[in-house]
Amino acid sequence: MNSASPRVIIHEVGLRDGLQMESQTIPTERKLQWLRRLLETGVDIIQVGSFVHPGKVPQMADTDELFRSLAEGDGIPARVTLSALVLNEKGFARAAECGVKLLCLGVSASETHSMKNTGMPVTEATKRIVAIAREATRSGMSVQVSVQSAFGCGFEGAVPEEQVMRIIRSYLDAGLRTISLADTAGHATPDMVKKRFGDILDLDPQVELACHFHNTYGLGLANVWAAYERGVTTFESSVAGLGGCPFTRVAGGNVSTEDMVHMFRRMNVRRDIRLDPLIDLARDVAGFFGREMPGMVYRVGQIK
Amino acid sequence: MNSASPRVIIHEVGLRDGLQMESQTIPTERKLQWLRRLLETGVDIIQVGSFVHPGKVPQMADTDELFRSLAEGDGIPARVTLSALVLNEKGFARAAECGVKLLCLGVSASETHSMKNTGMPVTEATKRIVAIAREATRSGMSVQVSVQSAFGCGFEGAVPEEQVMRIIRSYLDAGLRTISLADTAGHATPDMVKKRFGDILDLDPQVELACHFHNTYGLGLANVWAAYERGVTTFESSVAGLGGCPFTRVAGGNVSTEDMVHMFRRMNVRRDIRLDPLIDLARDVAGFFGREMPGMVYRVGQIK
Repeated sequence: MNSASPRVIIHEVGLRDGLQMESQTIPTERKLQWLRRLLETGVDIIQVGSFVHPGKVPQMADTDELFRSLAEGDGIPARVTLSALVLNEKGFARAAECGVKLLCLGVSASETHSMKNTGMPVTEATKRIVAIAREATRSGMSVQVSVQSAFGCGFEGAVPEEQVMRIIRSYLDAGLRTISLADTAGHATPDMVKKRFGDILDLDPQVELACHFHNTYGLGLANVWAAYERGVTTFESSVAGLGGCPFTRVAGGNVSTEDMVHMFRRMNVRRDIRLDPLIDLARDVAGFFGREMPGMVYRVGQIK
Repeated sequence: MNSASPRVIIHEVGLRDGLQMESQTIPTERKLQWLRRLLETGVDIIQVGSFVHPGKVPQMADTDELFRSLAEGDGIPARVTLSALVLNEKGFARAAECGVKLLCLGVSASETHSMKNTGMPVTEATKRIVAIAREATRSGMSVQVSVQSAFGCGFEGAVPEEQVMRIIRSYLDAGLRTISLADTAGHATPDMVKKRFGDILDLDPQVELACHFHNTYGLGLANVWAAYERGVTTFESSVAGLGGCPFTRVAGGNVSTEDMVHMFRRMNVRRDIRLDPLIDLARDVAGFFGREMPGMVYRVGQIK
């Protein structure tokens, strides 16, 4: 076990990043079933949805309702944190209303992606997101700020590291120290991963780092391993490898949660997450969509 | 670029490990087309087939004919080495007859796998393979010896490292210093990869190391990256991710050649291999079999 990473935190984002690009409507009741099953698997953080305009991303229109329903009945196990993504002030207000514990906010390092995603250039988007993040922190929420397209962009291609680091410095200057780098288009390679996370740690060794990789070119778990070796502690992934970003040109699935949990289990890094229920859920998701999902382990089962 | 790995050698094994498990007969003329296209891509070594009993592995029955046909006409570019797999003395005789430049021989570290594959326990199989390898070396061939199921076995599960190292020591004692570890069942994780290759380098820092990973659990390229970082220089892979081993219970495809070449190209480790013709070939292979192949890059094309 790498002493730089004493613990690995799994952040399941399938219900948000996994579903937002699906054209098929997913009934709220079905999402609740999946969420309740996820609550039992032992993953640490579950992203319930995003508070965005329902006209822009119809799949996320029921995020408020999902939070309310989950809070009823037996509620949420104390060891699990529910998160949500927010893009603007209105979304933040809805998240506060729903009692969201971990608020996720992000800025794209690609001008084209930023304009398509938010209608704002990067500098303006950064200021706005930093302001919301500070407000959320003051209100007692945990906050994770991310840089999207941090390793390349489906529209622009290479994204210079300096563009990424400019956003990172804005975050650090504002006292925001839980930071995620997202490989929205799947362009990252393991050497880049080590370099970019290493450069952030050089700026501030106390920062808590998260990563979010897509497997478009087959490099998802290679990048997870590189991030783990470099001291990243939170790993965002999606059950069955669901997902992608509707605003990028080429977007493969997210890293599959069960594939990643399988890797960390086999490496004796994290063995308490219940893999078989995760695999069953991935099979259920594949059955619901009626197609083969990107995940590998759900097809053959775990190595016993 | 990692100074431990000044150069990466690509060994394409799709025509052998990729096809041997296919039930559909592949016409010799089709294989020749694929081989001729591979010769133009810039991959360094191409495995043409294996000299095994045609009754046991009918897909490999035309290996002699393939070598003879390739030698005719314009022949083989000087920068390309053709390899073949051999399991016994008879196969070696056929390989010698065909003028094979690089002979690949292997022993499984799993007793069950060894018995199923060769009808011999590991110790006996090792003695026999070492004897053939020495004979081949004396006759002027280059020889690569491998350990199959070096990271786990589809039948037995975990394979103790000591079993692997016992075979490695037999190889080194016989002066055989081009050594491959094969993850036949796809059980390897990056930490294991670093450990096992590192232990071999500790025994003999001058050994030339090769690796052969399957992507059964999504870890193919993660293991390639770990092997590269640890000083492995030869990487076996299969166009479109074709393949698997017919003698193991669960066998996913090989690491896809074009996915791996894409990774090394993006990392500026190796940029002279022609990726687009490799992608075109992978698409042709997928078209021939009429199904989606395990490779990722051929689906979306390379990042330009």
